Order: sequence, then structure tokens, then C-alpha cells
Amino acid sequence: MAKRLIPCFNRILVEKIVPPSKTSAGILLPEKSSQLNSGKVIAVGPGSRDQAGNLIPVSVKEGDHVLLPEYGGTQIKLDDKEFHLFRDEDILGILHD
Amino acid sequence: MAKRLIPCFNRILVEKIVPPSKTSAGILLPEKSSQLNSGKVIAVGPGSRDQAGNLIPVSVKEGDHVLLPEYGGTQIKLDDKEFHLFRDEDILGILHD
Amino acid sequence: MAKRLIPCFNRILVEKIVPPSKTSAGILLPEKSSQLNSGKVIAVGPGSRDQAGNLIPVSVKEGDHVLLPEYGGTQIKLDDKEFHLFRDEDILGILHD
Amino acid sequence: MAKRLIPCFNRILVEKIVPPSKTSAGILLPEKSSQLNSGKVIAVGPGSRDQAGNLIPVSVKEGDHVLLPEYGGTQIKLDDKEFHLFRDEDILGILHD
Amino acid sequence: MAKRLIPCFNRILVEKIVPPSKTSAGILLPEKSSQLNSGKVIAVGPGSRDQAGNLIPVSVKEGDHVLLPEYGGTQIKLDDKEFHLFRDEDILGILHD
Amino acid sequence: MAKRLIPCFNRILVEKIVPPSKTSAGILLPEKSSQLNSGKVIAVGPGSRDQAGNLIPVSVKEGDHVLLPEYGGTQIKLDDKEFHLFRDEDILGILHD
Amino acid sequence: MAKRLIPCFNRILVEKIVPPSKTSAGILLPEKSSQLNSGKVIAVGPGSRDQAGNLIPVSVKEGDHVLLPEYGGTQIKLDDKEFHLFRDEDILGILHD
Repeated sequence: MAKRLIPCFNRILVEKIVPPSKTSAGILLPEKSSQLNSGKVIAVGPGSRDQAGNLIPVSVKEGDHVLLPEYGGTQIKLDDKEFHLFRDEDILGILHD
Repeated sequence: MAKRLIPCFNRILVEKIVPPSKTSAGILLPEKSSQLNSGKVIAVGPGSRDQAGNLIPVSVKEGDHVLLPEYGGTQIKLDDKEFHLFRDEDILGILHD
Repeated sequence: MAKRLIPCFNRILVEKIVPPSKTSAGILLPEKSSQLNSGKVIAVGPGSRDQAGNLIPVSVKEGDHVLLPEYGGTQIKLDDKEFHLFRDEDILGILHD
Repeated sequence: MAKRLIPCFNRILVEKIVPPSKTSAGILLPEKSSQLNSGKVIAVGPGSRDQAGNLIPVSVKEGDHVLLPEYGGTQIKLDDKEFHLFRDEDILGILHD
Repeated sequence: MAKRLIPCFNRILVEKIVPPSKTSAGILLPEKSSQLNSGKVIAVGPGSRDQAGNLIPVSVKEGDHVLLPEYGGTQIKLDDKEFHLFRDEDILGILHD
Repeated sequence: MAKRLIPCFNRILVEKIVPPSKTSAGILLPEKSSQLNSGKVIAVGPGSRDQAGNLIPVSVKEGDHVLLPEYGGTQIKLDDKEFHLFRDEDILGILHD
Repeated sequence: MAKRLIPCFNRILVEKIVPPSKTSAGILLPEKSSQLNSGKVIAVGPGSRDQAGNLIPVSVKEGDHVLLPEYGGTQIKLDDKEFHLFRDEDILGILHD
């Protein structure tokens, strides 16, 4: 990514993961394998502030594989690639293998 | 569950309990036995933050049998199994036998 | 009650009191005697948290005879008996004889 | 009042004052004399809690003659007498002769 | 005023000032002289409470000539005279000659 | 201004600046010169209060040339001159030459 | 800019960047290159206040290249140039090359 975006506040820049619709061997995968709406965290903001003005760091970090809500998020384009911005509290969870 | 989800904030990952519609001996059970909307807690988030930025732990723990609201929750699929994410404050109570 | 429910947060488990529509001697009671919407507290949650994260105990206790709002509350069934869950702040008052 | 109600939180139990529509001597009073919507405080709750969890006492006391808002309040019946429950902040003021 | 009202919280009891439509000498005044919606403060409440439970005194005092919002306020009648109750924060300003 | 208004709380009394539609030499000015909605601050309130009850002074001062929002504000008339009251937070900015 | 605007509170004065629709050599650029809604920060306000009345500085500074939301912001004209005012929390992020 030639142009870099540092999100403000508790925003999270996410690249959605499009699940492969067929395997590397060419076998078409059934529909249900694409039902998980997830993405990779590309960049995170410094966090929002509590009532005393202190920064509360966001709950995910660069590289995390995150579960995303079905709706919401702001779609943006950087150097012809599509990304989404989510608020930290809208990230549903972190996926581990 | 091969793929593990750690919920963010005060979210609770729940697997709904589908009551058996017939006994192990094959006797059909009457309808009313299925009226309790409950589930098993699979994973819990670290909690939400109070105004001073401190974490408030969630009120249920892994393995708890919880009473769920009739509506709400986010349905997700992990490795072809269906789960629901609820906010801690939406869990109605904990069931004990 | 074979299955016990411990409400979460400031929820109150209430069993509504259905006023007798005739006396034990079989005399039919006039309609107005059934106009008070009240119940018996079966179980109470640990309370909600203030902004510093401390628990605020609920204002009623097990066994209290409470005045309920006309609407609201969540109806649930435990072992074929009907109960209602109310938020502590929705309980109108405590009745004493 | 055989059955006593202790209101929860900052609720105020009020018995509305119905102005006499004729004097004790039988003279019919003009309509305007009944325009003040007021009541007598029968019982008060312990108060609501501030953000630190401390009780804030209500601003009226038993026996006070209070000015009530035109709408609002919850009508209840105790031993065939009609009362109203108001939130402390909905009481408009205290009347003195 | 035989019957006295002490407003609750940060309420302000105001008697609206009806501008004279003709001078004492009988000259009719043009319409624009009546366009200022103002009143005299008759009584003030003790104030509302901040989050620590302390009273915040109201910003006007008895006798002040205040500028009122065009809408809002609660109309009440005390001893056949008409008054209005406003919340302290709805008083627009204090007029000085 | 014979009659003086001291705004309450964080209200700002503003006299809108009507841009001249022709120059002093009589040349008609093009329309765009009138597109800035601004005014002169005539008087300011003492400020609003934070949660600890302390006054937060307003962010503009008497004499400031301020940028106003297109809508909002309360129109009032003092001694036949037209003014507007704005909340401090509705003032968009301060203009300097 | 002959006339200077200092935004109030956490407002940010932004000059939107209109992407060139052809290169300096005269080649027409495809449509997608214009899809990033961004601007240059011209001036920033002093920040908003936390609950203790302290200023929280804004998260961007003069000269920053910022990503803007698709909707929102207040359009203003200063000396025939068009600018937009945004609240600090509405700025999506800061762009770096």
C-alpha cells in the first residue's frame, strides 16, 4: 500500500477476506464456507478517550484476523484496493486457528 | 471447534441449546418443554471499560448455562456450527440445576 | 423450583400474584380486588455497576411483595411455572401489610 | 391505609387532592378554583443514586402539599383508594399557605 | 400571593410581563413594543444536583427580570393569578435597564 | 442599547452583520459577497457547568466577529434592534482579518 | 487567505482536494482515481473539554492530509474560496504517502 492511512480515534482499517470459492485443486466449494464475514486488520487508531481525557487503546492490533458485523463500516479505496473502517466497538471478535 | 473466536469487549459467545423433541427411548415430548431459550457459554470477552478506563469483567463464564433473550444476538457460523454473540448485559440470568 | 435461575445484573425474578377470584368459602369477589399488579420476589441479581465499576445492590430482596408496572418485564417459564424478569428500577415499590 | 407501599428509588406516592365543587354551605364554586393539580405526599422512596452509588434523598417529604404535572404518574389502587406514583423530578413544587 | 409555591429542583416560577398596549396617557402603542417575551422571577428552586450529589444553585434570583423562550414552560394558576414554571436552563437571559 | 441583556449559561448574544449590498460609492456588489453568515458578539453568558459544578467559560468574547451556523439561534428584539442568541457550542469559529 | 477563521471547540477547517481529472501531460484519468474524499487541514480549533473542564486537543494538525466522511461537514466560503468545517471525531484518518 503506497498510500498509508492512520485511522483517527478508535477506528480500525480492515481488509475484508474474500473466501476462495474453489480450492487450489479446482474443486468448487459449497456455499456455506463463505458465510463468515471476517477481515485482516491493516491499521488501528490511537484509541478513544475516557472522561479524564486518557487514551483507551483499541482492542485489536495490526495483523489480527477479526470477525466483522454484517452491516456498518465505511468503505474506502486506497490505491485501487478496497478497505473498510470500523469503530473498535463494532469488531465482534478475534479469530484464532 | 477448530477455529476459535475470542469475543471483543463484553460480548459472550453462546451455543444455543436445542431441547430434545423426543426422549432417548423415542417418546415424543410435549411442546412446552422447548419453551426455555437457553444456551451454553463457549467464550467470553475481556469486558467493557468503565469511565476510568478499567475493564469490568463480564458476569458469566465459560461453561455457564444461561437464559437468553427471545430476540437479539448476532448469529455467526464457525466450522459449520451455529453460534450467537450476545452483549453481557443482554444475558438474562444463569441457570442452575 | 427444581431449576434455579440467578438473574444477571439488576434483574429481579418475580412470580406474579394472581388474586383469588372467589373466597375460600366460594363467594365471588368483586372485580376491583384484582386491580393491584403485584408479585413475590423469587431471586435477585447481584446489581448493576456504577461508573467506578462497583456493584450497586438491588433495592428489593427475596420474599418481598412488590408492586409491578402494568407493562414490561420478560416472561419466562421454569419447570412449567411462569415467572417474570424485571429490572430493579422498574419495580414500583414494596408492599407491607 | 391497611396496606402500606414504600416506593422504590426516587418515587413519590401521592394522593391527589380533589377540590370541593361546592362549599360546606352548599354554594357551587366557579370552575377556576379546581384548576390547581395538587396532591398530598403519602410516602417517599429512599432516593436515586448518584454516579458514586450514594443515595440522593428525594426533595419532598411525607405530608407535603405538592404541585403535580398535568400528565404522567402511575395510577395505583391500594385498599380501594386511588393513589399516584411520581418520580421526584416530576414534582413541580411544594405549596405553602 | 396568599398561597406560596416553592419550586422543586432547578425550576423557576415566573410571572409574565404583559406590556401595556397604550400609555398611561391613553396613546396606543405600536405592535412591536410587545415583542419581548419576558417575566419577573417570583420564586426559585434550590437547584439541581451535579454527579457528586451537590446542589448547583440556579442562575437567576427572585425579582430578576428575565427573557423567556417563546415556547415551553408549564402554566399554573395560584389564587387566580397565572404563573409559569421554567427550568433554569430554559431562561434565556437577565434584562437590565 | 438602552436595555441590556446578560445571557444565561453558555448563551451568546450576537448581532448579525448584514453585508452592504452596494459600496459607499454606490456600486452594486455581486451576490457572493453576502454568503458569509457572521455576526458581532454583543454579550456572553457566564458559561455552562462541568460535572463537578464548575463554570466552563464560553469560547468567545464581547466584540468577537464570529461565524454562525446557517440555522438555529433564537431571534429576539431589544429596543427595536434585532439580535440572536446562540449556544457557545453552536458558534462555528472566530473570524480575523 | 486574507480573512482567517479560527474554528471553535474541536472543529477542523478543511479545504477539500479535488483530484486532477487529467494528468499534467493532458492524459484523461479513469474515474476511480477520484474516489478518495480527502482534504487538507487549514486550521484547527482548541479542542473540546472533558468532564473536568480540561481541553482535549484535536487529533489532526494544520497541513495534515485527512480522509473525510462522504457526508456531513458545514460548507463555508471565505474570500470566494470554499472550505468545510468538520468535528474532529468525524475525520476518518490521516493519509501519509
